Amino acid sequence: MKDVVVLGGGAGGVPAAIRAAQLGGQVAIVEENVFGGLCMNRACVPFRHMMLASDILGGLSFGDKLGLSSAGVGKDFPALRKRQEELIAFMRMGVATTLKKNKVEIIQGRGKVAGKGKVEVNGQMVPCKNIILATGSTWARPPFPGGDLAGVLNGDGLLGADALPKSALLFGASPWLLEVAQFLQRFGSDVILATPEKALLPQESKTIETRLRKALQGQGMAVRREAAIAKVSKEKGKLQVALDSRDGSESHTVEVVFYMERGPSLENLGLESVGLNSQGDCLKVNERMETQVEGIYAIGDLIGPPTRQYSHYASETAIAAAGNAMGLRNVLNPHTFTRVLFTQPQVACVGLTPKEAKEAGYEVVVGAAPFGMNPYGMLLAENEGIVELVADKKYGELLGGHFIGSHVSEMAGQIILAIQMEATLEELARVSCPHPTLSESIAEAARNALGRHIYLP
Amino acid sequence: MKDVVVLGGGAGGVPAAIRAAQLGGQVAIVEENVFGGLCMNRACVPFRHMMLASDILGGLSFGDKLGLSSAGVGKDFPALRKRQEELIAFMRMGVATTLKKNKVEIIQGRGKVAGKGKVEVNGQMVPCKNIILATGSTWARPPFPGGDLAGVLNGDGLLGADALPKSALLFGASPWLLEVAQFLQRFGSDVILATPEKALLPQESKTIETRLRKALQGQGMAVRREAAIAKVSKEKGKLQVALDSRDGSESHTVEVVFYMERGPSLENLGLESVGLNSQGDCLKVNERMETQVEGIYAIGDLIGPPTRQYSHYASETAIAAAGNAMGLRNVLNPHTFTRVLFTQPQVACVGLTPKEAKEAGYEVVVGAAPFGMNPYGMLLAENEGIVELVADKKYGELLGGHFIGSHVSEMAGQIILAIQMEATLEELARVSCPHPTLSESIAEAARNALGRHIYLP
Repeated sequence: MKDVVVLGGGAGGVPAAIRAAQLGGQVAIVEENVFGGLCMNRACVPFRHMMLASDILGGLSFGDKLGLSSAGVGKDFPALRKRQEELIAFMRMGVATTLKKNKVEIIQGRGKVAGKGKVEVNGQMVPCKNIILATGSTWARPPFPGGDLAGVLNGDGLLGADALPKSALLFGASPWLLEVAQFLQRFGSDVILATPEKALLPQESKTIETRLRKALQGQGMAVRREAAIAKVSKEKGKLQVALDSRDGSESHTVEVVFYMERGPSLENLGLESVGLNSQGDCLKVNERMETQVEGIYAIGDLIGPPTRQYSHYASETAIAAAGNAMGLRNVLNPHTFTRVLFTQPQVACVGLTPKEAKEAGYEVVVGAAPFGMNPYGMLLAENEGIVELVADKKYGELLGGHFIGSHVSEMAGQIILAIQMEATLEELARVSCPHPTLSESIAEAARNALGRHIYLP
Repeated sequence: MKDVVVLGGGAGGVPAAIRAAQLGGQVAIVEENVFGGLCMNRACVPFRHMMLASDILGGLSFGDKLGLSSAGVGKDFPALRKRQEELIAFMRMGVATTLKKNKVEIIQGRGKVAGKGKVEVNGQMVPCKNIILATGSTWARPPFPGGDLAGVLNGDGLLGADALPKSALLFGASPWLLEVAQFLQRFGSDVILATPEKALLPQESKTIETRLRKALQGQGMAVRREAAIAKVSKEKGKLQVALDSRDGSESHTVEVVFYMERGPSLENLGLESVGLNSQGDCLKVNERMETQVEGIYAIGDLIGPPTRQYSHYASETAIAAAGNAMGLRNVLNPHTFTRVLFTQPQVACVGLTPKEAKEAGYEVVVGAAPFGMNPYGMLLAENEGIVELVADKKYGELLGGHFIGSHVSEMAGQIILAIQMEATLEELARVSCPHPTLSESIAEAARNALGRHIYLP
């Protein structure tokens, strides 16, 4: 009898299994394909590798202002792809090694819930006290007419390509679509980015959203908002896209259309055997990550709304769920989660936006420090960069921190820790970061919220 | 009668004056030359600008692995210099504007202490309740024979050059010397870096020091330790350097020798009028930044040992001193200071090293997470990168955090806040940073210290 059986060996399942085993559990992990899941094999990691190449090209183009002139750079996508495939293969080996070292039993096959305390794999029953569902998400089918045509691709179509398309229309609202758009543009593709939403990051602070759009448009990215694809059709080997948006109706001829939305992988999991929904929306869990069925936990993309489809959410919920399955009482703080975007500029948003904080009933104070006023930011020409802090006026408690600019994904940790520890603006104002860095602006934003900024005009 | 007169308009003096004015003080700031001090005009800021160019070149050279091939890059130092001079001129204007907006009186001239509560500028007396000494530091004279030859340069000689030297020997122990060495090397100079110390960063954790040396030597940098210059002489328009080091005696022919140590600017400040030392060592202050003379404070490079010659130390001590001069009780936490290095890889070290923590009587626990095991670190080939955490075993309180790797200067804030708030390893282990970033490794290092790392083998 296992203490915990984890279904799925991705960004959520692996840490869940390891954590449960570290807590003394007899643990098995069931994986049908390869370890690492969508994140490592087909999304976050290869996308970030591609953004790294994209960043270098961005740096080189910026270098022109610094007296670095380049006659042009050769871009070898097959070489880029080969490097990331080799690295990912290496990472996969690492996952298997770590699981074994932690004495997690690896079961290769398709796992299904066969009732409370029962998992079925390859026709065999695995009895267990707890089940952690960690099957993640899969690329969704394009919902527009013509979505089944050969040139309409998801992430797999991009990662498996021998060459990049000369022209592409990217449709959807996911943050990683923006990354792919910038990557393709930097690698020489003509790109149109079309979102069904009113804004590129509709849930985020207006400050961030506006600056992001300005930055991307300043780079020459064509953006359409409130967009819908009326139809995609094939003409002379290319795709004809009828696109409606707030800018009117247009027709675009492109090589490929990318659609990269994701939905929870609920099908064929046997969820109906315990009365859980097996299609459609995400699974509902309580603050302990437990579904309506005692002893069955769910994590990551299975429970996250689209705004939380990030592998760090998967691993955080995984570690919490594993602890709970092993008898601890781990409760997730919903306000320490980071929404992140690895474009140039990067975006990292933690906790409540000013609007959300007001809606939650706080008397809100907001402070900001534009990177355009930060010494290193001036060197970087960070015209769109900023850090914005949101706090409760009464006690000064930090409620949210929102960044756009270079390296900001690496700065989110300070905000996460601050919210977790209920730090106040006074405490943040005292954090003297090294000079010259962009992170110095966090203290200045706190001082700005307190009405005593030092370096801002 | 002024409440506060600040002597020196650099990285320390400016925030001191603004903070004192914000607290309701009548404040004057006395500056002989231009605002911004050594940091903005002649060190941190222009050096960081040069490191930005250097980083882009480093990125491009790394890009080769990612399928980005470049036929070579033109390096135009005069263009780089022009951009930084324009940016610095703009920053200087910003400083003056901010001082005026905060109603700080600007007095142009050489200020001198003329007794307790008396400052003399241009022959005029300015009576005041408090004096904040903020004159910073100046380039020291080379102590070796031949140090007065024309080709022996300090930072000014580098920043004012029309062209970069084809060959250079850099002698000294300052971290910024490493930055200049890497910059020169990336821009095509033949470089020898010689330190009188046993290690490149002798005060830092062994983990960091060893990895830094390995990284720089891996880039082809010639490093000599325990070095001393026996003599520099001029021969056929070049400099002949007789160098002794742990590797023996050598003779090098180079275009220039850089010597960039700095000492406190104590001379001609009238310090003898109040019984303070006016040459030699740094000024002594108490934990409130006050010298032995009541009402006379000193900050930044005037009080910092060479390991604290950083402008963020100047501004932090400035804000504390200004508060104290205005009647607050600000006490500096000596363990939240960051030692930083903007080479590739960067170094950022906060708080106690393992050795220092042991010497301070703690039962020490150390945890580390190499970036070579971090997913983004693998993409970046961060073979030398690591984060190392030092904590007190009994309560798990964080005592120090030490980084080497890309972007780590932007990650120090999380450690500073953690030490300031007396966070424990348990609390750090729960900080779920965005994926894939290097900052994820902070939580993993905390888990490693707690014996329950998840991703490390």
